[in-house]
Amino acid sequence: MISVGVVGGTGYTGIELLRLLLNHPRVSVDVITSRTEEGVAVADIYHNLRGHCDLIFSAPDVDNLAACDIVFFATPHGVAHQLVPALYDKGIKVIDLSADFRIKDATLWEHWYGQPHGCESLLPEAVYGLPEVNREAIKEAQLIACPGCYPTAIQLGLLPLLENDLVDSDNLIASAASGISGAGRQAKVDLLHAEISDSFKAYAVEGHRHLPEIEQELQAAQKNSKKSVKLTFVPHLLPIIRGIHVTLYANLEDLSVDLQALYEKRYASEPFVDVMPQGFFPQTRSVRSSNMSRLAVARPQGRNTVVVTSVIDNLTKGASGQAVQNMNIMCGFSEQEGLDHLALLP
Amino acid sequence: MISVGVVGGTGYTGIELLRLLLNHPRVSVDVITSRTEEGVAVADIYHNLRGHCDLIFSAPDVDNLAACDIVFFATPHGVAHQLVPALYDKGIKVIDLSADFRIKDATLWEHWYGQPHGCESLLPEAVYGLPEVNREAIKEAQLIACPGCYPTAIQLGLLPLLENDLVDSDNLIASAASGISGAGRQAKVDLLHAEISDSFKAYAVEGHRHLPEIEQELQAAQKNSKKSVKLTFVPHLLPIIRGIHVTLYANLEDLSVDLQALYEKRYASEPFVDVMPQGFFPQTRSVRSSNMSRLAVARPQGRNTVVVTSVIDNLTKGASGQAVQNMNIMCGFSEQEGLDHLALLP
Amino acid sequence: MISVGVVGGTGYTGIELLRLLLNHPRVSVDVITSRTEEGVAVADIYHNLRGHCDLIFSAPDVDNLAACDIVFFATPHGVAHQLVPALYDKGIKVIDLSADFRIKDATLWEHWYGQPHGCESLLPEAVYGLPEVNREAIKEAQLIACPGCYPTAIQLGLLPLLENDLVDSDNLIASAASGISGAGRQAKVDLLHAEISDSFKAYAVEGHRHLPEIEQELQAAQKNSKKSVKLTFVPHLLPIIRGIHVTLYANLEDLSVDLQALYEKRYASEPFVDVMPQGFFPQTRSVRSSNMSRLAVARPQGRNTVVVTSVIDNLTKGASGQAVQNMNIMCGFSEQEGLDHLALLP
Amino acid sequence: MISVGVVGGTGYTGIELLRLLLNHPRVSVDVITSRTEEGVAVADIYHNLRGHCDLIFSAPDVDNLAACDIVFFATPHGVAHQLVPALYDKGIKVIDLSADFRIKDATLWEHWYGQPHGCESLLPEAVYGLPEVNREAIKEAQLIACPGCYPTAIQLGLLPLLENDLVDSDNLIASAASGISGAGRQAKVDLLHAEISDSFKAYAVEGHRHLPEIEQELQAAQKNSKKSVKLTFVPHLLPIIRGIHVTLYANLEDLSVDLQALYEKRYASEPFVDVMPQGFFPQTRSVRSSNMSRLAVARPQGRNTVVVTSVIDNLTKGASGQAVQNMNIMCGFSEQEGLDHLALLP
Repeated sequence: MISVGVVGGTGYTGIELLRLLLNHPRVSVDVITSRTEEGVAVADIYHNLRGHCDLIFSAPDVDNLAACDIVFFATPHGVAHQLVPALYDKGIKVIDLSADFRIKDATLWEHWYGQPHGCESLLPEAVYGLPEVNREAIKEAQLIACPGCYPTAIQLGLLPLLENDLVDSDNLIASAASGISGAGRQAKVDLLHAEISDSFKAYAVEGHRHLPEIEQELQAAQKNSKKSVKLTFVPHLLPIIRGIHVTLYANLEDLSVDLQALYEKRYASEPFVDVMPQGFFPQTRSVRSSNMSRLAVARPQGRNTVVVTSVIDNLTKGASGQAVQNMNIMCGFSEQEGLDHLALLP
Repeated sequence: MISVGVVGGTGYTGIELLRLLLNHPRVSVDVITSRTEEGVAVADIYHNLRGHCDLIFSAPDVDNLAACDIVFFATPHGVAHQLVPALYDKGIKVIDLSADFRIKDATLWEHWYGQPHGCESLLPEAVYGLPEVNREAIKEAQLIACPGCYPTAIQLGLLPLLENDLVDSDNLIASAASGISGAGRQAKVDLLHAEISDSFKAYAVEGHRHLPEIEQELQAAQKNSKKSVKLTFVPHLLPIIRGIHVTLYANLEDLSVDLQALYEKRYASEPFVDVMPQGFFPQTRSVRSSNMSRLAVARPQGRNTVVVTSVIDNLTKGASGQAVQNMNIMCGFSEQEGLDHLALLP
Repeated sequence: MISVGVVGGTGYTGIELLRLLLNHPRVSVDVITSRTEEGVAVADIYHNLRGHCDLIFSAPDVDNLAACDIVFFATPHGVAHQLVPALYDKGIKVIDLSADFRIKDATLWEHWYGQPHGCESLLPEAVYGLPEVNREAIKEAQLIACPGCYPTAIQLGLLPLLENDLVDSDNLIASAASGISGAGRQAKVDLLHAEISDSFKAYAVEGHRHLPEIEQELQAAQKNSKKSVKLTFVPHLLPIIRGIHVTLYANLEDLSVDLQALYEKRYASEPFVDVMPQGFFPQTRSVRSSNMSRLAVARPQGRNTVVVTSVIDNLTKGASGQAVQNMNIMCGFSEQEGLDHLALLP
Repeated sequence: MISVGVVGGTGYTGIELLRLLLNHPRVSVDVITSRTEEGVAVADIYHNLRGHCDLIFSAPDVDNLAACDIVFFATPHGVAHQLVPALYDKGIKVIDLSADFRIKDATLWEHWYGQPHGCESLLPEAVYGLPEVNREAIKEAQLIACPGCYPTAIQLGLLPLLENDLVDSDNLIASAASGISGAGRQAKVDLLHAEISDSFKAYAVEGHRHLPEIEQELQAAQKNSKKSVKLTFVPHLLPIIRGIHVTLYANLEDLSVDLQALYEKRYASEPFVDVMPQGFFPQTRSVRSSNMSRLAVARPQGRNTVVVTSVIDNLTKGASGQAVQNMNIMCGFSEQEGLDHLALLP
């Protein structure tokens, strides 16, 4: 049993972490923090935890957290910058679900997040926690920058094409849609049921903060890493609670490749990537509540545009499940430990 | 490990049984039947099972099923009547999720189901599988009549009042609402998303088939079992997938009783009944995907009408989870084995 | 053409008023106020109005409003208390959609609303704007207290029973459910899509502010007005945008009455009340966006409990549509003017 | 007043036609046909029409229909082929909402619809009923092929680019999403609420029947009509009732053009096309129940990919509203007659 702490436990990624960690056979959740809910029982806010969790929210405190083996940050950006260094210096392993350590270029981070980067010194230490790419580095890492939800779904969908230099990488398109839980548990009029239900819209068309992270990682994924990567990324808001669906479009430079075989081979040994058989396309509900991602690839009308669809649960593989997967790898547990439940359908 | 079979695996209670049984540490699912999908891989219909289940639907066959230790029936009414006797004679344990053995009076069954009762001889052997009432009998049973979804939520809500003769039992009211999965996976216009979404309605106001089952069991639950029980039961259809919420109204005959204490005491040792603290009322999502039921009791304005609200997931505690709970009891497993995951929230 | 003003135009009843008034052939909307959005174009907040409305939100100002023939208040409680007297003194007709003038007993109002009553002097002048009861008084009124959403649906459902002293009036039950727009356009975590969608709950079980209004009016509706009225009223929150559905239970004191005929006769000449044929029950979507209410009555199993179901659109007949209906009556227009569009289905 | 008939009145486009035509001041709906519901009152199926419509479904009969001035076909493909010629010969005006006359090349139609074309002789007479392109021809037409829902939203979004040869027309992408009412009122498991709600998926990725219609019309729209048009069109299914949202991607060949000005100018005089101000993007709910379409154009990161988002209500501007707009033009009515109500929001 390892001891873990969660910083920022009141949001949706926090509660999802608890759902997964409380059922994990090798983990004891010992600390959970919230500035706003200090002193409140976690189960009083999240009634699904009644009877399963005696934790009380505490104020974030480095000494308390340092008694844990691993600390998760499920916080708004900027918070991990402030608290991670002290934990890192004490040798605590940190898995940051926020954007604080995802972008390697601090100036680029500052441009997109509109504030100074609070912890440039640890950027070189942070490992981007996408196991399907960085599994070996994750094993040795002390600080994980857990990927964003859109970036996970998009990278899994495009990696086989870019790793093999098969497409025109400066003309990629990601038409993506997310369930509303991706916007967090925030009291905003735009997120009300009466505003979101029975409607659909694009948002952040002119630039979403996940774009630089995606382009950075896709750039690195290419066999010929000097090719530029340009992605047009348009996110949309779905009237569902959980789920990300991305539809990816790229222009094939080699029409002879067997795309189905390529994808199946690339992910054959991945426990959390499922390539659908030809002619089937994934629904978000097929991964609801699970850490699985599910992909399909097609070439409509046999033309040279390849279409990939890719789904994850934004709170699980897109955030907290992926964080637990990283923890399992870091701790030498089976990668599926605590993550082997079936998606909830219907 | 015990070997189990599932008859009627294509409906929502069938897939929910699979979700629970495939994760159960002491169970091997060896047979799953469907007349309409014979020869089809289960995971080709339910994509959430891809990679977790190699089962193929077979035609129902008594010899195949008799090789199992326990057989679950997740079938329309009438089917279990035909197949159970042969299995029963071979000593196989049967858990029937349909209505076939719930009503003790065959004539009453025939009135509500509009067809002859196909298996009166086994009625005396069938144990009504509500563990919160019949746990001891379930331990010894060979044939379980698993309660319906509405009956489970309503009985759990009313039992403490009736067992103590506290209310006017011939003037009970149950205003109940169910998620659409309760109507099954049937191709009917009335169940389309475009018909159900963003709407709400009462249905079967003049008589729902669950009524006689509920009255039979409430009658038996009374301390003074000669008092008549009359329930006005109005079900409604919710534009949600899973969840039953019942709001119960009864006239108290003794205003001095501490209702909160009564409920807490009655269910103190029940693993799947949670009584909310005074002033809190349960949401269906707090039990989504779990076998938990959650109750609250109140006496508005201090008047003599007691109001109880009770929620379950209709597919779990209202059907397949309760079936697994019965199996655990029958097999001497921990009652929570395979049922201890947390409800999915959000 | 009459000139109208709307105080408090940013909420859902405000935008619904605009939707109805902008299409009304005899109305010119000349003033719309909002303290928070002063100077903003209405169509910049509500994009459905683009091209149909040039109005700019202004700060509420008695002189501006006094230039109108009729002023609607679509404000939180307490606001109308402050602004109505000055308008009233200038002879302006006022239709208040808030709770400020609905309860005749100022002390009772103060108990439920937790603040001093700001305008007791006008209470005797206010006419409760339920046309199906008070049509004649509305014709002559200068100040209308427009009924709440739950009260409208509940009263329409119970009136025929109470007006004829047919039921035990001190044991009435209203199990009611409202779409989320009834909670208003407020930035609260409890109203988020991720909290409300795919779930259902009771709320305010121990006392909802609409209760005293309903009991006051039901009391007055009785033939024998000395009989007490006690209603157990439990509201629930539906994951739909618009619609109220109430299920009413009462004990019949005379089993010989033909309930279907009673209801059909009571509402035969009402333009906005539709009694369904026996055996049919209304869905909320059948009145979505319209001012129609729709009722059904039944006596399950021929027992002595009568069940009435009643639906309205909470923003239309439950608020803004009813306000326009009142305006039509006050101005001598056809009662259906501007309200004759069909409900949106599907 | 003109007399109109509707063939195929039981589906969602049929009921939407009724909703619009019954409120139209210059129309009398005199015939409505349905083979399956012959003899049934329309209002018995669609309760929102109770009190507004006395029509009875009749079997389709040319003589009855020929007594009308205009006949609408809201039928599955193939039906209009059979019935239109007789009506056409009698001089009756026909507006066909099905796909029967949209594709000019009968062989292409047969390829996509998998059956022989039943009425090639009238193909040259059929005018494609997109008023924003063919208004003058519609005025003189006797037979209108009303555009499909996806084609309407996609063409309105791309026309300004193609009419001015601004983009690489053989590399166009349409990522489109439709509310479930677009799939019709059919009893299919895939369309159930329990299957669609809280989920999202792509479908028909390898080829959707609307593709040839879109490419035909986009090809014709180009200034240089010899340039080929190739569109990658991926439709998705939204868990909403009404609404289509398309996100269009094209590569600009001239970066100097002012796209915002281009779009505003193109649609300046169109009553049913609204171009949003720069930085705003349309939601489907902003056009729910109305005949309006709403567009936005952007060039993310100033790169050379132009993104256009376009929304319509699939049942209104995407089907029945557009049919009424065509009727208004054909009959010399104001184009907005009967179509000037505001979208329903919230």
